[in-house]
Amino acid sequence: MSVAAAKEQRATRSALEEAQALVAEDMARVNRLILERLESRVPLIPELARHLIAAGGKRIRPMLTLLAARLCGYRGEHHLALATAVEFIHTATLLHDDVVDESELRRGKATANAVWGNKAPVLVGDFLFSRAFQLMVQVGDLEVLRILADASAVIAEGEVLQLVTANDTSTSEEAYLAMITGKTAALFRAACEVGAVVARRPEPERMALRAYGEALGIAFQLVDDALDYCARQSELGKTVGDDFREGKVTLPVLVAFARGDESERAFWRRTLERCEQTDTDLAEAQRLLARHGAIEATLERARAYGRSAKEAIAVFPRSQVREVLAGLVDFCIERAY
Amino acid sequence: MSVAAAKEQRATRSALEEAQALVAEDMARVNRLILERLESRVPLIPELARHLIAAGGKRIRPMLTLLAARLCGYRGEHHLALATAVEFIHTATLLHDDVVDESELRRGKATANAVWGNKAPVLVGDFLFSRAFQLMVQVGDLEVLRILADASAVIAEGEVLQLVTANDTSTSEEAYLAMITGKTAALFRAACEVGAVVARRPEPERMALRAYGEALGIAFQLVDDALDYCARQSELGKTVGDDFREGKVTLPVLVAFARGDESERAFWRRTLERCEQTDTDLAEAQRLLARHGAIEATLERARAYGRSAKEAIAVFPRSQVREVLAGLVDFCIERAY
Repeated sequence: MSVAAAKEQRATRSALEEAQALVAEDMARVNRLILERLESRVPLIPELARHLIAAGGKRIRPMLTLLAARLCGYRGEHHLALATAVEFIHTATLLHDDVVDESELRRGKATANAVWGNKAPVLVGDFLFSRAFQLMVQVGDLEVLRILADASAVIAEGEVLQLVTANDTSTSEEAYLAMITGKTAALFRAACEVGAVVARRPEPERMALRAYGEALGIAFQLVDDALDYCARQSELGKTVGDDFREGKVTLPVLVAFARGDESERAFWRRTLERCEQTDTDLAEAQRLLARHGAIEATLERARAYGRSAKEAIAVFPRSQVREVLAGLVDFCIERAY
Repeated sequence: MSVAAAKEQRATRSALEEAQALVAEDMARVNRLILERLESRVPLIPELARHLIAAGGKRIRPMLTLLAARLCGYRGEHHLALATAVEFIHTATLLHDDVVDESELRRGKATANAVWGNKAPVLVGDFLFSRAFQLMVQVGDLEVLRILADASAVIAEGEVLQLVTANDTSTSEEAYLAMITGKTAALFRAACEVGAVVARRPEPERMALRAYGEALGIAFQLVDDALDYCARQSELGKTVGDDFREGKVTLPVLVAFARGDESERAFWRRTLERCEQTDTDLAEAQRLLARHGAIEATLERARAYGRSAKEAIAVFPRSQVREVLAGLVDFCIERAY
């Protein structure tokens, strides 16, 4: 790593840490609430859920709810239950995303949920989803329920759209954006919006936080899709090449496909559409992405969404919370380096 | 079929038909609402959901909501959205219940969701679940949201409990009852209760409908578990022996296991715990159930719950709707003959 890159990484890390420090007390209470509401008379449920939910993760989505509520000057306690609900919805989505198909088993992905099988994670996901709605009902705000029920429907649509576009190199960039807006940005957006709603802020502030969350979510997913081809495994905690092996058609691929020649397109069709892959194909894919600047183009798009996110919250007066929210944007984008 | 049995079946059929006739107009509107709210910008969603939801079925759960609302003298329109939500939650559960595990694939169950794979049904189930909550939010009654969010959590717990008790012949009858109360009776109960809530009826009527729904749901599942060993395939629309092949430990098995000798218990352990089954094992299982009167014992239990269900609604003045609800109990139990 170059000195400049190392410096940048330190800066990035501290943006996340600053956010974490600002809501540390609230987040500790959210973490307690998470463990408390995971409880069930069926021990397998907390056991399995804890496996994923306590594994840490950066808790970015519930953090957004806490920060949004604070930006809006909220003084109550409802944001804690809502942040917990947001994390439960996110975890349910992850559990359902882990379901493997017979065809994928054949491609050697059986280890994905080797511990629990397919069925238990689906049912535990349903439990978490229900718990999320129980938490919202306790808060007792119908507008919050509407926002998160809408978000859940859009997430499911986005996930189905992902299934439909997988293995299809003729996916348009528009369809790709619709897909990541659904599967990722909808929850970021809702997580921010409910913070404003619970604080009973007027429409413009609510719309501003909504726009911030959506743009941040899109940027986050774009970076994620770039990282899948270039991250250091140890730093990311995810395996490079997962999307490639699963035949997911993401923006880096769409860019390289559009800019590539006929033989390159044949490569993408073979590896992603027909899923005929050899051991050297991932390296070849990375080489093609590099040749066409596809990672850089994807990150450039992410930066543009990041700028939109920051502009959206400019309607709020300058404050430490606003700075932290802007810093989170940088963190989400710069983790790519 | 004997003359008496044929007569009884006619009587049973007319109890269901009477219920259907009484709410025919409402149900037609519910069916329209179902199709309307299945719509999505992702065509695969209505396509897949319609496959299951339009396949007919008796729509007993939404019918309960319509009948309960009518029993309570409700004159508004909210019961239509709630009946639709109830049917969506039920369908989501069915879709998630269809998920197959690798181990089950090996046992030759791969055809179960051969058409769509595992993943699409899970995501479409999530979509329906979200749509159910959107419908409830539109009705705008927090109590209704609480009841159905609670029911959803209990259903998920019941389904996980079913996973845990499968293949375990030492399951207690108590654990079995807790499991079917969760996976089946919780939604029957909630479907009835929301009918009273939307009509703003006092607590005793609401509790009466709740108790009716729960007892009916337990009876319904007991009969279902009995039918799995004895129904005529053509009449039931389900395959005899499914539970046996999946290693589900249901009440008929628990009765036969408790009353059987050591060699019989060895049979159940081999076939249900270790899932080592030959072509003649289902017939042998049916012979053992018959020897110990296990089907009759299960149906006797169902009849007792049926009586409880009828007693519960005795708090309501005698009316056609009350008679129809009582008739539905008979229908659910007598379909066993």
